[in-house]
Amino acid sequence: MDEPMDYASAGVDIDLEGSAVASLIGALASSVRQPGTRGAPVPVPGGFGGLIEFGDQLLALATDGVGSKLQIASRLNRWDGVGIDCMAMNVNDLLCVGAEPLAFVDYVAVPKPDPEVHAALGASLAEACRLARVTLAGGETASLPGIVTELDLSGTALGWLPKGEAITGEHLQAGDVLIGLPSAGIHSNGFSLVRRIVDHAGLHYEDEAPFDTHHPHRELMRWTTGQATLGEVVLNPTRIYCDPVVDLLNAARQEAPFKLDDIRGICHITGGGLSNLLRLHPSLGWSIDTPLPVLPEFTWLQSAGGVDTREMYRTFNMGTGMILAVAEAQAEAVLAWLLERIPGCAIVGHVADHGHRVTHAAGVEFTHY
Amino acid sequence: MDEPMDYASAGVDIDLEGSAVASLIGALASSVRQPGTRGAPVPVPGGFGGLIEFGDQLLALATDGVGSKLQIASRLNRWDGVGIDCMAMNVNDLLCVGAEPLAFVDYVAVPKPDPEVHAALGASLAEACRLARVTLAGGETASLPGIVTELDLSGTALGWLPKGEAITGEHLQAGDVLIGLPSAGIHSNGFSLVRRIVDHAGLHYEDEAPFDTHHPHRELMRWTTGQATLGEVVLNPTRIYCDPVVDLLNAARQEAPFKLDDIRGICHITGGGLSNLLRLHPSLGWSIDTPLPVLPEFTWLQSAGGVDTREMYRTFNMGTGMILAVAEAQAEAVLAWLLERIPGCAIVGHVADHGHRVTHAAGVEFTHY
Repeated sequence: MDEPMDYASAGVDIDLEGSAVASLIGALASSVRQPGTRGAPVPVPGGFGGLIEFGDQLLALATDGVGSKLQIASRLNRWDGVGIDCMAMNVNDLLCVGAEPLAFVDYVAVPKPDPEVHAALGASLAEACRLARVTLAGGETASLPGIVTELDLSGTALGWLPKGEAITGEHLQAGDVLIGLPSAGIHSNGFSLVRRIVDHAGLHYEDEAPFDTHHPHRELMRWTTGQATLGEVVLNPTRIYCDPVVDLLNAARQEAPFKLDDIRGICHITGGGLSNLLRLHPSLGWSIDTPLPVLPEFTWLQSAGGVDTREMYRTFNMGTGMILAVAEAQAEAVLAWLLERIPGCAIVGHVADHGHRVTHAAGVEFTHY
Repeated sequence: MDEPMDYASAGVDIDLEGSAVASLIGALASSVRQPGTRGAPVPVPGGFGGLIEFGDQLLALATDGVGSKLQIASRLNRWDGVGIDCMAMNVNDLLCVGAEPLAFVDYVAVPKPDPEVHAALGASLAEACRLARVTLAGGETASLPGIVTELDLSGTALGWLPKGEAITGEHLQAGDVLIGLPSAGIHSNGFSLVRRIVDHAGLHYEDEAPFDTHHPHRELMRWTTGQATLGEVVLNPTRIYCDPVVDLLNAARQEAPFKLDDIRGICHITGGGLSNLLRLHPSLGWSIDTPLPVLPEFTWLQSAGGVDTREMYRTFNMGTGMILAVAEAQAEAVLAWLLERIPGCAIVGHVADHGHRVTHAAGVEFTHY
């Protein structure tokens, strides 16, 4: 390998994306809906889910797509997981503001409709609805042969929460404890780099994975028998964290030894990896001292692609799909509650007073998202 | 012209689309959300917007994209209207169930982000939010060079209404009066056929339109001076009917001489043209005796493409973007109310007892959507 691979050289220019999105946002006038009325925007740092007022409640919307993971699904004609990916990318964002997901709509763009593919997608979305406990409230399938060359899938999730109970990160303080929830695999980010590394390695997704795919508390969605294929590993669907996070928040509202105020921040680890933590607070830092174990596919990807460690943590979840920041005094109680529902979660670090940066035991540091 | 053009020969197979969508829907299990709880689905005939329970209220979601109209916008690099198209396709669907749109999220897929295009899209979406009176609650821009060859734009709208006030069509009866609301142009359906006809005619979208573009109560969004170009006519954005329909429903709830029960059905005339009316009721028929005037672009398209009249009415709105079915006794009062807000609307026909079909003064008939 001549030079180490990174995300930009794999075809994704995060800065250009940021600039384009900033242009779009910059052009938007403030809402015609005035504060105190239905539909008025509620500003929340982090921007995972968009909140609006609705009487004594808040409603939240999140919209996202599966991205270039779909290109591997298309090559393999395996659609079992991508509906779950699409759901997860959206509902996990809603959880970050403390919202309970209620409903979902999907948008599929195809060059030409294929009833078999749609039946498989429908089954995947149905399973996703069950996992996220939401109603599929609609969807659109567009035939756009002049715009898409293969299937694109995105969706929008709707959630709610009682007014005054949004998790905004404003109560975060140094010493708060970070609890990591294990991921199920690569989830739905970093696939431009994944595809480039696999191509470079001369491997096919139908091949057996060139590493031991076993990992505690992670099951692969399989469609072959025997050794898991590379395709089965990389397409393993994104974990949906509604169970346990929605139940955790409800427990905190009710009988649990911890209270809602003890849950100070929730971070979905998506594109940007651990740097996502910086979205939760404008000045506090994040120290990941005892990370969850790295999934074997990340170790292999790093080695096969000669990828810099920092680039790995900036691109992938590395084994941790969601991080909760919890009041120190209640951290053990929250962890005990979570461990009964989601084996493999653990205390991974703490909120620090060392500047607006993320530091990680692997020796990497991020100062901007 | 050798043989008349139709929508299927222009590359869109409505039956194949229907079959693919049916596969997807067929694979969906019923919701895990039980009736009487937040998020439970509320069945409504027509399927314009998906309704869910939310305490004493109902929430509605609609998701749709701009479709192949975007290909013309891309060619011309004109993005002023497509945000409005995207908004309109969604909020107009919400209006059909009696919901007031509150918020919107957009999804943009591009081969490569372009800050200038995004700034223009942002401005268009901001204007759309103003017209539809909604909050832009979020959005996603995905760079998918392996999936899209040019920009795709879709979105999702969230609306609400009081429980028990959904417009379901169940109170429709023969004799109800149909009020047509004028469209602003081709809106966002039928563009595969539009593009094929324009290509066939050897015209360019930058050319002056080969017909008189003037039409009462319709203004074109212009970016040239002098005679309107063909591009300006075909890209004219879809009309957003929030004003007057949301206000009409609120007036019916309050001081108006008509009541909410008098508004029996609302139909957004989208792909499928007038056959959309058949979605509102399982057995009643629809007679359009005195249609609104046909917009000049439709007359030209039919002539230039040698398109059958029935195919025109099955593909395009032909000048009527939305139809309200109103109790006969209150029809004049509703029309008078509407005419103060939206010049050009008129009584166009009535609900008929002549079987589950749409008949139209132009001599066309539809028996299925």
